[in-house]
Amino acid sequence: MSGYRVDLNCDLGESFGPYRIGMDEKIIPLITSANVACGFHGGDPNVMEKTVALCRKSGVSVGAHPGFHDLEGFGRRNLAASPAEVKNDVIYQIGALSAFCRAQGVKLHHVKPHGALYNMAAKDEKLATAICEGIRAVDENLPLLAPGSSAMVRAAKKLGIPVICEVFADRAYMPDGTLVPRKQPGAMIEEESLAVKRVLRMVTEGKVQAIDGTDIEVQADSVCVHGDNEKALCFVERIRAALEGAGVEVCSP
Amino acid sequence: MSGYRVDLNCDLGESFGPYRIGMDEKIIPLITSANVACGFHGGDPNVMEKTVALCRKSGVSVGAHPGFHDLEGFGRRNLAASPAEVKNDVIYQIGALSAFCRAQGVKLHHVKPHGALYNMAAKDEKLATAICEGIRAVDENLPLLAPGSSAMVRAAKKLGIPVICEVFADRAYMPDGTLVPRKQPGAMIEEESLAVKRVLRMVTEGKVQAIDGTDIEVQADSVCVHGDNEKALCFVERIRAALEGAGVEVCSP
Amino acid sequence: MSGYRVDLNCDLGESFGPYRIGMDEKIIPLITSANVACGFHGGDPNVMEKTVALCRKSGVSVGAHPGFHDLEGFGRRNLAASPAEVKNDVIYQIGALSAFCRAQGVKLHHVKPHGALYNMAAKDEKLATAICEGIRAVDENLPLLAPGSSAMVRAAKKLGIPVICEVFADRAYMPDGTLVPRKQPGAMIEEESLAVKRVLRMVTEGKVQAIDGTDIEVQADSVCVHGDNEKALCFVERIRAALEGAGVEVCSP
Amino acid sequence: MSGYRVDLNCDLGESFGPYRIGMDEKIIPLITSANVACGFHGGDPNVMEKTVALCRKSGVSVGAHPGFHDLEGFGRRNLAASPAEVKNDVIYQIGALSAFCRAQGVKLHHVKPHGALYNMAAKDEKLATAICEGIRAVDENLPLLAPGSSAMVRAAKKLGIPVICEVFADRAYMPDGTLVPRKQPGAMIEEESLAVKRVLRMVTEGKVQAIDGTDIEVQADSVCVHGDNEKALCFVERIRAALEGAGVEVCSP
Repeated sequence: MSGYRVDLNCDLGESFGPYRIGMDEKIIPLITSANVACGFHGGDPNVMEKTVALCRKSGVSVGAHPGFHDLEGFGRRNLAASPAEVKNDVIYQIGALSAFCRAQGVKLHHVKPHGALYNMAAKDEKLATAICEGIRAVDENLPLLAPGSSAMVRAAKKLGIPVICEVFADRAYMPDGTLVPRKQPGAMIEEESLAVKRVLRMVTEGKVQAIDGTDIEVQADSVCVHGDNEKALCFVERIRAALEGAGVEVCSP
Repeated sequence: MSGYRVDLNCDLGESFGPYRIGMDEKIIPLITSANVACGFHGGDPNVMEKTVALCRKSGVSVGAHPGFHDLEGFGRRNLAASPAEVKNDVIYQIGALSAFCRAQGVKLHHVKPHGALYNMAAKDEKLATAICEGIRAVDENLPLLAPGSSAMVRAAKKLGIPVICEVFADRAYMPDGTLVPRKQPGAMIEEESLAVKRVLRMVTEGKVQAIDGTDIEVQADSVCVHGDNEKALCFVERIRAALEGAGVEVCSP
Repeated sequence: MSGYRVDLNCDLGESFGPYRIGMDEKIIPLITSANVACGFHGGDPNVMEKTVALCRKSGVSVGAHPGFHDLEGFGRRNLAASPAEVKNDVIYQIGALSAFCRAQGVKLHHVKPHGALYNMAAKDEKLATAICEGIRAVDENLPLLAPGSSAMVRAAKKLGIPVICEVFADRAYMPDGTLVPRKQPGAMIEEESLAVKRVLRMVTEGKVQAIDGTDIEVQADSVCVHGDNEKALCFVERIRAALEGAGVEVCSP
Repeated sequence: MSGYRVDLNCDLGESFGPYRIGMDEKIIPLITSANVACGFHGGDPNVMEKTVALCRKSGVSVGAHPGFHDLEGFGRRNLAASPAEVKNDVIYQIGALSAFCRAQGVKLHHVKPHGALYNMAAKDEKLATAICEGIRAVDENLPLLAPGSSAMVRAAKKLGIPVICEVFADRAYMPDGTLVPRKQPGAMIEEESLAVKRVLRMVTEGKVQAIDGTDIEVQADSVCVHGDNEKALCFVERIRAALEGAGVEVCSP
């Protein structure tokens, strides 16, 4: 027994009204933490209720996944919202989801920003601070889930809220610990066996090889996985099996 | 000193984005409970934050004012939402507002449905039950604010959640304690001095003369007032002065 | 050659943002008229552009499919909109779709209301008139597509706008020509071969057996079909083959 | 008689549902062209119908005022929409407004983008081209209303659609003909008499003094004015009187 532990987190609950997206029923049993959409970029009150129920049944931790109020763009388009607006949007969405948690006797576990808000706040200290202020305003013990090298984690530490640091199985890293932008060659780790090996090393050694060949340190409390197609599901099963095979406990932090 | 007490409640926080509605700054100092819009029929996260702050400053109790998700119709158009949808809409909106309350150290005080949802649930047992189930799911000690003769209050009592019964200064009553529909002659109590007298009697005697001339019993824990124009503000001042002059304590229940 | 002609119409273009609904690419080659969502209950500007392009490529007539502005409920929940609001909603949505038609050199062919608006206006003369006034305001030669026995067709005839009368393959009829409500036993024609026979008879004889066993007259300019699953697609192929096999020309009216 | 002519354009029709913004009834009689919101950043079908009617009554030209679909931010927040999305948003909004024009026998006169879309497209060639492609797709003779020095006007000229160039009474200009950013000192022309003089010179000489003291050329087909408060209304009256006093004909181009 290695003594290592890691969480597997996945975005879900992003269906809306009559529209279905993702394979929530199938991915939930494979993961340990869910980032649940809160009605701004996806999700609606009925979907949120069902999603919390599914997570509860599988013992999966429920996190809030606040995004920009841009359903048409699925929260993936950068929006010039002010920090004050972002803070209030975050409070609103955490509150909405936490009411569904309370209704089902589930504790809200963490907050992970979505899409463009996540990407912008990874670099923008003011937005990152606004998000963390929103989280702290609701509950100073509620952790932020974000990449260790991001402005979000720096802001969380400054404000004194807990952090869960996530890593990515299928993405290459820059020497400074940020992700290689998707458009750049080599951004994606296409080969699954390599991706699995990298995850294992990040979890057990806290290191990964950056795109320039150097080894960098990463904090791997959680691995971000996807559950929107069959291939993704298989990959999650594979990662999970590899982690457990190596004696790593896969559990919510 | 009479020993009588009554609350004055008013809908507010209904501005949205760049759009201003109501005279919140002026009405808040005159009332004791606010029904704050939660973003579905009016209000948005920024307006909610400001409204809770205004209420807190004036010591006014903050209640959630959930409505149908129909901004264009201001939640005033009947919508054939299912009881399950209504329950989830109520949970969502209570949760969103309660996060702003928590952020400002304010306790969420009550829930009063808005507009068409209020009117439909006053008569429809299933919708009334759905609303009360939504409230109870979030907090079984959170009171419903509604007219004593409504299906909402009946449902609340069945489900065991507290109720605050409201009366109307400017509306005539049917012999069964329901309001005379607005379109019917005599529905509105136009004469202010009469309206004030009726309020005083409802609060101190628990009685009001119905439209057919008979006296009926009413439970007057709270008086519903309006704050969207100067005339309404003056009327609230007049009611408040009359109540206090008669030794009635005006305070949140 | 029989000299008979009939149209096959189907609702589509109902995807939204990242959300896919329906099997538009597969159903379009099988039908002759499309009812294209206009952004209120489904559809968005990008989906509308693509849908008009798909219809154009297959020579399918493009109709506007206006609905209530209730994306969450997919326009399927009754909404107490006033006739004036309905008229303006219809003008707006026809205008939006007709701009995409103009952009692609396609003539807007007809208007068919969607979901709850369709169902309410089938019985409510005021809403039916509001819809027809909206159509006429934009183009007095633009046909309404609706069931022959509906208040919509009566209103269209009063206002002098053209009508295309539709029938349903999979639904039973009341003796007065309206549909048997879905909740009633016998409402659905489950047996496909019977459904096909009924369509053929409606198209060639203008008659159908009502649920009470009597023969009633129906005007079958168009048959309403569905394209949201594989079974529905097969059924459309079967109806189309049966019609063509009987010498009926399947074409847009 | 000088032979000079100029248009006065103003944004309006930006109310929404129960929310009123602007003083449309008062500004319309003072201007010659209206930029009417199309439901994305403000306005709704009922407001659009009323606004077109008001313009028609006063003989004011009706232009479409498309914006980002961000009601909460009033279309004033930059949004990373793709050029393809912008083109379709423009087509949709022009179409919706033109249906209300057709319904009232009014010809759609021009298109002026709103808020963040206007500001972004003033500098971004791709967005500017997308907007102009959207306009041209609906009607190649429909003019774009925009500042002469903007990427929008350059794109319109490349694509061969007509342009109406607007100038600002209350804004300082950079030597390259663009506006001095609002945050910079001297950006606003505070003194009304100076602003009026500058307008007169722009209209009659085609010149204005830039912030560096040099004279630059401007094309002043239209002057952009505001109608959202009493002071703005008075200023429009003053500009109009000064123009007419100088023999300039104030009329829609």
